[in-house]
Formats: sequence, C-alpha cells, structure tokens
Amino acid sequence: MVISIAHLGPKGTNAETAALAYSQWLEKQTGQQTQLHPYPTIASSLYAVAKGEVNLGVVPVENSTEGSVTITLDTLWELEQLQIQQEVVLPIAHCLYSKSELLKEIKKIYSHPQALAQCQKWLNQFLSGVELVATSSTAEALKYVNSDATVGAIASPRASKLYDIPILVQPINDYPDNCTRFWVVGMSPTTDGSHSALGFSVAKNQPGALVKPLQVFANRQINLSRIESRPTKRSLGEYLFFVDIERSVSDLTTQEALSELSTYTEILKIFGSYRIFTIESSMLATL
Amino acid sequence: MVISIAHLGPKGTNAETAALAYSQWLEKQTGQQTQLHPYPTIASSLYAVAKGEVNLGVVPVENSTEGSVTITLDTLWELEQLQIQQEVVLPIAHCLYSKSELLKEIKKIYSHPQALAQCQKWLNQFLSGVELVATSSTAEALKYVNSDATVGAIASPRASKLYDIPILVQPINDYPDNCTRFWVVGMSPTTDGSHSALGFSVAKNQPGALVKPLQVFANRQINLSRIESRPTKRSLGEYLFFVDIERSVSDLTTQEALSELSTYTEILKIFGSYRIFTIESSMLATL
Repeated sequence: MVISIAHLGPKGTNAETAALAYSQWLEKQTGQQTQLHPYPTIASSLYAVAKGEVNLGVVPVENSTEGSVTITLDTLWELEQLQIQQEVVLPIAHCLYSKSELLKEIKKIYSHPQALAQCQKWLNQFLSGVELVATSSTAEALKYVNSDATVGAIASPRASKLYDIPILVQPINDYPDNCTRFWVVGMSPTTDGSHSALGFSVAKNQPGALVKPLQVFANRQINLSRIESRPTKRSLGEYLFFVDIERSVSDLTTQEALSELSTYTEILKIFGSYRIFTIESSMLATL
Repeated sequence: MVISIAHLGPKGTNAETAALAYSQWLEKQTGQQTQLHPYPTIASSLYAVAKGEVNLGVVPVENSTEGSVTITLDTLWELEQLQIQQEVVLPIAHCLYSKSELLKEIKKIYSHPQALAQCQKWLNQFLSGVELVATSSTAEALKYVNSDATVGAIASPRASKLYDIPILVQPINDYPDNCTRFWVVGMSPTTDGSHSALGFSVAKNQPGALVKPLQVFANRQINLSRIESRPTKRSLGEYLFFVDIERSVSDLTTQEALSELSTYTEILKIFGSYRIFTIESSMLATL
C-alpha cells in the first residue's frame, strides 16, 4: 500500500517541505511507500483526510513568531474525527524572490499571509509602502514573479530548487529562530506519544471556569506545553480552549485527569497523542 | 483643547466608525471637542499615541469570529506605557462592493485580512477560486473597485455613505453575530472601570506555571472574561498571556490579587481598567 499524504500546495510550500521530510522518515520507519498530494488550502487538505481521499494530511498549527494557524485549529474542532499522529517541527527561513536586482524597483510583494506577517518588520524597513498581496501559499506567490520585475514573492529556500527564480535577499524573517509546528493527521486514533492535544469548551462567565480544567493537570504534575483560546464564533466572549499536555493519552494518570476534566467541560475533544520530529538543517539541505 | 484620536484609515474603516461613535459619546460626556486622525496601519495608530502625536488611539483587539487582532496585542506589549481608557464594541456587517452587477463577473476581491477571514465560508461558496488581495484596511480596498468591474471589495456599510460605489451583496459575514472589540488607548494611567487588562509571562515548562496565576483570581472570585496566549517570538513554546478580568484595578481585592500575581510571573504589565460602551444599531445608523 502506498500511504498518500495531503499538504498545502503547490510544490515548494513549507507544508510540502514538512510533508516530504515526514514521508522520507516514515518510509524508513515502515518500509512503506508514500506519495504527496498538494491541495489548494490548509482546510481542503484536512477535508481530504476526513473524506478518505488521502491517508494523512500535514498541516501547520503554530509558528514561533505569528502564533496559531487558526484555520487548522478551527477545522480540527469542526472535523472532530481527525486524529493527530505526529508533530513535525520545521525551521523557517523566508526568502525574497524577484527578477529585479534592486529592492527599490519592487512595487508589489506576493505571499501567504503568515509569511507576510512573519516578515512585517523587515518589509516596513526595506520595502515600506509596497503593496502586499495575499496568496493561498508561499509557492503560489512565485507564479506572479516571472513575468514582472517590479514584483517580489516571499517563499521558502527549497522553492529555489523547484522554480527558476532568483533569490534577492535571504533570510528576511523578523526573528531568527523562526519555526513552524506541523501536525500529521489521520483517521486512526492514536494514544501513544510524548504529547497529547485536547480541545474543550467551558461554561461561560464563572470565576475559575478555566482554573478547574488547568488544576486537573497541575494537581498531577502534568505540564501544559501550550494553551490557546479560540472564539466559538457564536458570540463575543465565548471561547474554546486548545491545550497540549506533555503526556500520552494512554498514560494512566492522564486518563484519570481526562476523566476528571470531563466533569468541568461542556465539550471535550481528544485530538490524539504524538511524538515530535524536528527536521534538522542537515536533512533540510537534502530535500 | 481638542482631543485628537488616531484610528486605522482612511475614512470608512470599522476602526473609524468605532472612533467616530466614541468621539461623539466623549464630546457629550466632557463637552470637549474631538478630531479624528486616520493612520495607515493599526500599529502606526498606536505608535502615534506613544509619540504624543495624538491624545488617544482606537484599535481593534478582538473579533467574535476571527479572534485576536494579534498586531494590537503585540504592539501594546512592546509599547508598555500605553493605557487602555475604554472599550468600544461595534457590530460588524461586511458588504461586498462592486461596479459589476453579477457575482460571476468578479475575479478579484480586495479587503483587510480580518474581513477576508470573517467571510471565508461565504467566499468559498459564492466566489470560489477568486483571487483574494490583502489591503491595509477595508476602506483602502474600495479604491480598487472604481476602475474595474471585475473587482470587488469587502467593506463596512458606512463606506457606502462616503464613497460612490454600489453594494452588491450584504451582509456576507459567515456568522451573523459578528462584533469587534476596540480599545481606546492613551498615555494617562486608568484605574477605574468594570474590566481590566493585564499581560504577563511565566517561567517556562513547569507543571502548573499558568495555574498559579489563574488561581490568584479564582481564589478571590474574580472572573476572567478572556485569556489569550501569544508567542514571545524568541523560541517555540514560550508564551505571553493576555488576560481580561471583570474588576477595576483600583479595587482592593484586585490590588491584592495583582500583588500575589507578581510573585508567579516573570514580567507583569497592567494595561489599565476600562468600561464597555456598546454601539447600538440606532446610533450606528446616524454615523
């Protein structure tokens, strides 16, 4: 069987790089073949898993500079049957691509909104007043660069191997230690791993409504590596919480904690347990 | 003295509507005159207050569908001397503007990224595959519509009074109860209000690191109306927390809580206390 893996396309996006590194690692681990499938949006690569078009999807969940990729959290909550199988951490370097050789000739920059946000200080300093155009992915942005020397695009270093467009400046991300966490999601439940991801809602407007859920973990010395709130979208002031804990769901103490947690939450969803695979720069260079 | 108020411009943005409603309310309350000053970005309207170019700034902080306006939180943390004076809640209706009379003729939509995100389901359903272009504000998007009937823009209903461009469809926001919270910020410390906003960082990777700060409030029956995490931008897994409590900073119990809180936090910033002013639709119609 060939394991099919969805990611935000086209080739050369950061999601494709993460999916490629993961697929090579998976082939080595399992001896099974893998095949990557580009999708036009992050949400559609998650829907593809839910609909059974592919076995797995690799989606960005959080960047160290810009924070949550909210469409991933919102879609995971909506498609509740999806399960996280693995985390992949990718170091991010944003490059400015252009046919122009001079920054001052550039009038328009295309890229994914996350990439534009992660380079906003650099753009303000060196390309102040330039028009910023949002594209569905960083690699998608490159298609605007070829025919017009007044146009630039922000994309990954790997894209330079795939498209014949020169890099004008790199890296241009505002913070050097820029990393993005990706989740590999599938349909089979996972209980084993170093971390687990949960989502829950609590009754609104009670003092301590969030303390009790957090206390459940603190009382058992379970560390939270992350907490994120998202609006329920029903009305202002109503939230969902996404929490990552540093324990497996199969762990007995975690099971006790989850059982107590369910008494304090309105809706509780377990997104699965995962191990973390960090892509080293030596591996990145071979992709 | 005329009170000068910065907001994201040009005229017709949701920030301008919030600033206008607030300025009329302030004139009635104080008898003082006010003057609005548009700025090209949300960050620059906050910097204008910090530099003393204006007395106050009105900036969006959270939307009921899309969640935090992260640039506002990040800039408030950076410019620590700014103090929140008031909250203004604005009901949001997004309108599709175009010179075209048919949806199928539209090939490109311009708007602020928050507005595009708040209409993403509608856009997927009725304008699937159309190019989405990010502009610095919703009102800024309207300038692309005039000369090209294949172009649309998403902007506020008020913009139709200011610019001679027809509304093709309204409202197009994905969720009907769409509201945005704005904060009015200035340089004078405020301690009085129904709510207060704080930001803090905690020592990383300790079980319960976030529980202790939250417990401080729960123990005193102080309700949190919101908690939001933001990356420190230094490295993955390090966060700042922004918390709104339903108490004034001048309240004795709150002062006790803040004093205990400071023993659990690395950095603690008090952004001030505020009352909430909700713009009613009757007032909105007169603006």
